[in-house]
Amino acid sequence: MKKAEDFSEWYNEIVERTNLTDKRYPVKGMNVWTPYGWKIMRAIDTQIREELDGTGHDEVCFPLLIPADQFSKEKEHIKGFDAEVFWVTHAGLNPLDVKLLLRPTSETAMYPIFALWVRSHADLPLKTYQIVNTFRYETKQTRAFIRVREIHFFESHTCHADFEDAERQVREDYEILDRLAKRWCVPYRLLRRTDWDKFPGADYTVGIDTVLPNGRTLQLGSIHQYRENFSKPYGIEYEDEDGEHRHVHQTTYGMSERLLGAMVAVHGDDKGLLLPPDVAPVQVVVVPVLAKGASEEVNRAAAELQDDVKRAGVRVFLDDRDVRPGAKYYDWELKGVPLRLEIGRKDMEKGVVTYVRRDTGEKSLKNRAEVAQDVLQTLVDISTEMLSRAQQRMEDDTVDAESLDDLPEKLIRLGWCGDEECGHVIEDRTDRNIIGIPVEDEGFDGTCVVCGKKASSPVYIARAM
Amino acid sequence: MKKAEDFSEWYNEIVERTNLTDKRYPVKGMNVWTPYGWKIMRAIDTQIREELDGTGHDEVCFPLLIPADQFSKEKEHIKGFDAEVFWVTHAGLNPLDVKLLLRPTSETAMYPIFALWVRSHADLPLKTYQIVNTFRYETKQTRAFIRVREIHFFESHTCHADFEDAERQVREDYEILDRLAKRWCVPYRLLRRTDWDKFPGADYTVGIDTVLPNGRTLQLGSIHQYRENFSKPYGIEYEDEDGEHRHVHQTTYGMSERLLGAMVAVHGDDKGLLLPPDVAPVQVVVVPVLAKGASEEVNRAAAELQDDVKRAGVRVFLDDRDVRPGAKYYDWELKGVPLRLEIGRKDMEKGVVTYVRRDTGEKSLKNRAEVAQDVLQTLVDISTEMLSRAQQRMEDDTVDAESLDDLPEKLIRLGWCGDEECGHVIEDRTDRNIIGIPVEDEGFDGTCVVCGKKASSPVYIARAM
Repeated sequence: MKKAEDFSEWYNEIVERTNLTDKRYPVKGMNVWTPYGWKIMRAIDTQIREELDGTGHDEVCFPLLIPADQFSKEKEHIKGFDAEVFWVTHAGLNPLDVKLLLRPTSETAMYPIFALWVRSHADLPLKTYQIVNTFRYETKQTRAFIRVREIHFFESHTCHADFEDAERQVREDYEILDRLAKRWCVPYRLLRRTDWDKFPGADYTVGIDTVLPNGRTLQLGSIHQYRENFSKPYGIEYEDEDGEHRHVHQTTYGMSERLLGAMVAVHGDDKGLLLPPDVAPVQVVVVPVLAKGASEEVNRAAAELQDDVKRAGVRVFLDDRDVRPGAKYYDWELKGVPLRLEIGRKDMEKGVVTYVRRDTGEKSLKNRAEVAQDVLQTLVDISTEMLSRAQQRMEDDTVDAESLDDLPEKLIRLGWCGDEECGHVIEDRTDRNIIGIPVEDEGFDGTCVVCGKKASSPVYIARAM
Repeated sequence: MKKAEDFSEWYNEIVERTNLTDKRYPVKGMNVWTPYGWKIMRAIDTQIREELDGTGHDEVCFPLLIPADQFSKEKEHIKGFDAEVFWVTHAGLNPLDVKLLLRPTSETAMYPIFALWVRSHADLPLKTYQIVNTFRYETKQTRAFIRVREIHFFESHTCHADFEDAERQVREDYEILDRLAKRWCVPYRLLRRTDWDKFPGADYTVGIDTVLPNGRTLQLGSIHQYRENFSKPYGIEYEDEDGEHRHVHQTTYGMSERLLGAMVAVHGDDKGLLLPPDVAPVQVVVVPVLAKGASEEVNRAAAELQDDVKRAGVRVFLDDRDVRPGAKYYDWELKGVPLRLEIGRKDMEKGVVTYVRRDTGEKSLKNRAEVAQDVLQTLVDISTEMLSRAQQRMEDDTVDAESLDDLPEKLIRLGWCGDEECGHVIEDRTDRNIIGIPVEDEGFDGTCVVCGKKASSPVYIARAM
């Protein structure tokens, strides 16, 4: 299946052919992480840990099960999740006195404990995160990494002395996201959700959205400002410097395995995956090109080449299987390895190595002696160009509209006055969702497509994946 | 509470005072991993990954929830776990058609998929592992890390062409264990369980047991030979080189967060924890000893000392809080940091640093210029001596007995003919469990304490924690 013809089918096929996940597990929407898929997810997790540890967050791990009474303390929150949680009602052979639910997210597991951890202003800010699986009973059609019922994700939870400090945290989250998204070559927009689409219990929600090749948006994660919405029902208070008791202001930030889905969707092509160099389990594959009578010599040269690349800190694999080079090229292109090095007798005589980039297909000869620095530089180039090409495609898939008729299947930017009534008209008439208002000021100067009033900011609408 | 007076109380107190876990979560036996405890557990996990990746195991991650019908295919297995699983019966607002249970261990989640992954002899051996939380509805009194209802653990699962290759895997598991236990300074015995105490479904089970200061044994993990007991009901077959279809032979190996409990129990003392250097979040603490008028100079020297130690690859923390040194010593001894470096004006004048070992309390002066190599060597010495002292204590807590009367609260070695009937007499009369037969040949020459027949191997009995 070609990506341009049927993105949805292409996606399913590529995930299966590259064995990124196994969907044959007998519970719908709960897939098996295979070695290849899990290596990529672990690389993503490792980089998230580096960023969060490096910005003063402490990793914790809270229990999976949440008692029903604890879950229902924040009224909007419980309303938002009521229809999609899994319930544990029995243990062993007996019914439980208090029903337990599998965390759909961990606010209600963490916050009663935060109320014990936070006592005085000296305990603030409290910055924590965890990397766990969460559970949501999705009723829509499931799709690997994108819509599943057991979701691998990270969630950071922070408590602050006041709203301003919580806002600083939100800005730090933007910076963390920006550094990570660069490494992952994933373009995104920060879009503030409407009040009727924000996270249950949040003061406001900023979605992290990317645009897929079919023109739909995919939410990769979100950043929430809670103000005191949770700290009041859960009693998270501190004593300030004047001895006054105050509720903390809270934020959360989370992103899921959809990141991996986005990498597949945004970068893959008809040959297979294309993995960002920073997360590729194999960054470079070395293929010896054997000629008659010289195979031992070439194999030795390929092994030495592998050693040199490995010493440069690169994840490199030597494919010395007894199959023809073309079959190897096919396999590794399918797997999405960013760079292939070929070495044959002629290369050896000339003191060169053949470089083949997975992203552009470009072939070049480079000096054998400089392979360590050249490989590192090529991986940086591939990463940079993957990101800029993907950003350009996202720009191309974003269009301005002045009316609600004949809209293309893209991310549409238009004017909205901000009134809920006009918002619903936009959504109903276009059969699309308001994804949100851009966090960054876009210098927009327009009018609401519904009522004609001045719109100081544009709004983005799309069909969500 | 003193460790020698009441080990059990001492253990609970030390876990709480050092904030290794938070037991105030409102579901019994489900504790919160705090930043400090989780850092240690993550170090343990990282070292397990290094070992398993290094021996050709692939990390995977299987779903948490197992359908009831899939769980009950192996009859012994379901009998063994029936009374201690958590049941998910509802999702959203509706009852589920097929009830789901939270994995107590993952055989029944993995093996239907292994049946799809294994096709021919070329797929063997299949060596996988995962690091996840499991769930058991414990009815006994819970205890942090030692008996909990949400258990952090690793489990490796392997498939082999025949029994001999599966046995080779068991021996590789022993080697992996030995390397890890050395790093963790935890002594252990490999004891083959009786038939009535083996893992439900196993052909045989080898327990990994250590002896606690109260003379009770603690099982840290186990290694199982399954033969074809699971591959037959789950249909895990391969085509051998002659085109014959055969069932695979399987093994598993698992160890849990009890490893951390064992480190606390075996090494801690009345001052607090003593962490093995390889897993200590802080391996070295630097404390500036300030004299009047020289504090700035000393603080600078302490910061330089920290830099030098850090550059040697050591996890070092500079405690420059504005409290007296004694309070700092107390805090870091409680936290179990293996080595303290003190630097004051006099040390600076002499060009030395004061080393204080947490394990022995020993103080020594060493050359400032050689701090990098001296710190590394001291950490190795501490680790080696922690292990040998712990091994000696385990030896001291193991005694031979010739009869079943007046046994001390220790690990008891005695003769047993191997008959189940005599085994039950031993257990009933001593109110102890047969922990198992040693895997290693101990050159034992004795007779069964019950029937007087020749016993070619001793048996170990104890009260289990």
